[in-house]
Amino acid sequence: MTLNTRGLRAALLAGALALAAQAPARAADEAEVKDFLLDNGMEVVVIPDHRAPIVTHMVWYKIGSADEPPGKSGIAHFFEHLMFKATSNHAAGEFDRAVADIGGSNNAFTSYDYTAFHETVPPSALEQMMGFEADRMRNLVLTDDVIKTERDVILEERRSRIDGDPQAVLDEEVDATLWQNQPYRIPVIGWMQEMEQLNREDAKAFYDTFYRPNNAVVIVAGDVDPDAVKAMAERTYGKVARGPYLRPRIRPVEPEQNTRRTVTLTDARVSVPSFSTQWVVPSYHTAKPGEAEALDLLAEILGGGNRSRLYQQLVVKQGIASEAGAFFQGTMLDATNFTVYGSPRGDARLGDVEAAVDAEIARIAKDGVTDDELERAKTRYVRSMIFARDKQDDMANMYGSTLATGGNVKDVEEWPDRIRKVTAAEVEAAAARYLVLDRSTTGYLLPQQQAGN
Amino acid sequence: MTLNTRGLRAALLAGALALAAQAPARAADEAEVKDFLLDNGMEVVVIPDHRAPIVTHMVWYKIGSADEPPGKSGIAHFFEHLMFKATSNHAAGEFDRAVADIGGSNNAFTSYDYTAFHETVPPSALEQMMGFEADRMRNLVLTDDVIKTERDVILEERRSRIDGDPQAVLDEEVDATLWQNQPYRIPVIGWMQEMEQLNREDAKAFYDTFYRPNNAVVIVAGDVDPDAVKAMAERTYGKVARGPYLRPRIRPVEPEQNTRRTVTLTDARVSVPSFSTQWVVPSYHTAKPGEAEALDLLAEILGGGNRSRLYQQLVVKQGIASEAGAFFQGTMLDATNFTVYGSPRGDARLGDVEAAVDAEIARIAKDGVTDDELERAKTRYVRSMIFARDKQDDMANMYGSTLATGGNVKDVEEWPDRIRKVTAAEVEAAAARYLVLDRSTTGYLLPQQQAGN
Repeated sequence: MTLNTRGLRAALLAGALALAAQAPARAADEAEVKDFLLDNGMEVVVIPDHRAPIVTHMVWYKIGSADEPPGKSGIAHFFEHLMFKATSNHAAGEFDRAVADIGGSNNAFTSYDYTAFHETVPPSALEQMMGFEADRMRNLVLTDDVIKTERDVILEERRSRIDGDPQAVLDEEVDATLWQNQPYRIPVIGWMQEMEQLNREDAKAFYDTFYRPNNAVVIVAGDVDPDAVKAMAERTYGKVARGPYLRPRIRPVEPEQNTRRTVTLTDARVSVPSFSTQWVVPSYHTAKPGEAEALDLLAEILGGGNRSRLYQQLVVKQGIASEAGAFFQGTMLDATNFTVYGSPRGDARLGDVEAAVDAEIARIAKDGVTDDELERAKTRYVRSMIFARDKQDDMANMYGSTLATGGNVKDVEEWPDRIRKVTAAEVEAAAARYLVLDRSTTGYLLPQQQAGN
Repeated sequence: MTLNTRGLRAALLAGALALAAQAPARAADEAEVKDFLLDNGMEVVVIPDHRAPIVTHMVWYKIGSADEPPGKSGIAHFFEHLMFKATSNHAAGEFDRAVADIGGSNNAFTSYDYTAFHETVPPSALEQMMGFEADRMRNLVLTDDVIKTERDVILEERRSRIDGDPQAVLDEEVDATLWQNQPYRIPVIGWMQEMEQLNREDAKAFYDTFYRPNNAVVIVAGDVDPDAVKAMAERTYGKVARGPYLRPRIRPVEPEQNTRRTVTLTDARVSVPSFSTQWVVPSYHTAKPGEAEALDLLAEILGGGNRSRLYQQLVVKQGIASEAGAFFQGTMLDATNFTVYGSPRGDARLGDVEAAVDAEIARIAKDGVTDDELERAKTRYVRSMIFARDKQDDMANMYGSTLATGGNVKDVEEWPDRIRKVTAAEVEAAAARYLVLDRSTTGYLLPQQQAGN
């Protein structure tokens, strides 16, 4: 029941996963990934991985916070919570206990473009998991009491995770300043005043529209046989009737940005100042061929870890920053963001760190990257993928997030080749085109005494 | 067919009207304002004014850009244009020619909360005007050709009025930075990429939903007899069938702002730098009793013309500003904005002007206003209203805008008394509560050479 936010802090914590989400096509044993549709429109992807007697089972619904009706922010995440309540066949908590009893684990998360539920269990329990998931896809019992109780939970979650954390408060307003039209401006957890109003009618309408087999993708990664999985899926999910036609997910698009924007939060709870600058850039789903791959490598070269230019220049060489980096959120349905960030060390000032980051950006936009640097970045990417390949749940996440944001199995499989084809000129062009300071959005988190920066 | 924007420049140009919109209840001859409903739900307000043989006739639709469906920005204004096209009874241009032939004038405007159409004609032509308006309320002929032609017109309007004007480009992004959830963040004219996609289906759905007698208010101000107006309205508008039930206009609400935000546009076409700082404040429709009145007087005392503190201090005494002022947009359906602005003179720097404005705000929030100052502000308000009272179309606008933003005739009539009751303590409290720099949004318009402010 975690919330998958995109703020700077969240992105850093999720760094490993972000890379994993770009991992190559095949599981460790190189067995072929199978992809099929049930008659009710549900897509099923099977990733054989026989190294251990375990299976990761995920249901991805193509519904996230960016699909919420106006004024109903938070309902996608609220619904993630409600999915753990009683159904007409199972009491609340019964599914969780069944997982715990067999030594498995389970959870769920909500993001802008999807909501996912997952269990990791022995293969012998897979059909039971499918049965539970198929059951709660349609048979939730949504009473006013259930709504009220769980609404209090998400309100408290917002209070503790957002309102109690200056970085989270800032991130929300930076996002809403970066995105002026596209719904990524709305926080996944929702705006408090709208969360407070969510009711049973809203929940029922949301459930009946989006929790349908034709709006879901099942990912099964593990020690399983694809044909057996297909038979199990037909016996469980296959019994759920197809839902009504769902319109294509066409959302309001961001207008061109013409200004430089800043958002500053000064708070007594902050001890070390920090900044992050964001730009609107295309995602894998919206980019022209090769452009998102170039942005991925640009992020890697500029600020993707200890070998990156920002780290080497600011942290190692100049010694003015305690942290400095860059990242690109490629796996999104709509246009996404490219971010650089930094924080001073010792006597250095935030302004010095920001100027040094800007200088590195200017340099890469003007002079580009070297072929050698690019090759090393590609190698680092591939290496991190090999690592990711070893993690069954990362493999499942990679397929699930791609399929839930407009991609397909082939997109995942061909991705490493597309990365290998990126040229230095393409990386330079991406930097020059997108990383323009006069069209950026910067968030500043400042300690009380440092007001005014 | 003008567009009623809320940016700084528009607000300055519309300054006289903004005051007029707060004018007192009765027309110059003190005749009683009559208000009645037709059987189809249309409200009619008659303001007798017998000083000249002329009448102002307005139809206000309770539909503005803030009511547009997601992704369809600009359609309210687009529809204002389409209303001048052919109907099944009249060729395009026939209505305009009829007005011109009798020496009258006509126009229309679109704002966040309403769209209005108006004619000023001799009283003998009033019923003819009503007939034309009643006709185009339901009988427009919306062909693909009409849509395409007029869409090109609004696209060109956007190019010339917004994209060709750095102040307008900045205002749009400042608005979208100030408003992160409430639909006032979307420009009335629309975002280009959405305007380009508006089609006949969108227009038809919009027309059929909102252009209905039960969503309209007719204002008739002039040399007329209320009973005769009522009979005419019944013979014309009364023939139009009531439309389907319209849901209350409940829109997404703005979350609390926790940050200081800036938006900077640097452009070679700018010669003199300027800034404006805005805050989210309650409107007459959303405020607690007396609070919007206090904000009106705060704006007047702080920056409402040549006698205001900002003007006296910055322009007259310090001589550092070519302009400095404040305004409050009270007549809105949802929460609205309070704005201060300034621009340097001679060798003064923009930063000096901004600091001096901030100092005046801090002073008024800390020490409040004097009783004498408050009385003089009330007197200036009343005086400007007496002036407004003399203008028939301002009277009509005052009633129309109030009735289209959740108010009624009584609200207009009692407004002067409510202004008179405001105390100095209430003005001070409004300043202290709302004009907090750490929760403000500032727009900077800078010449190219002054980049970096």
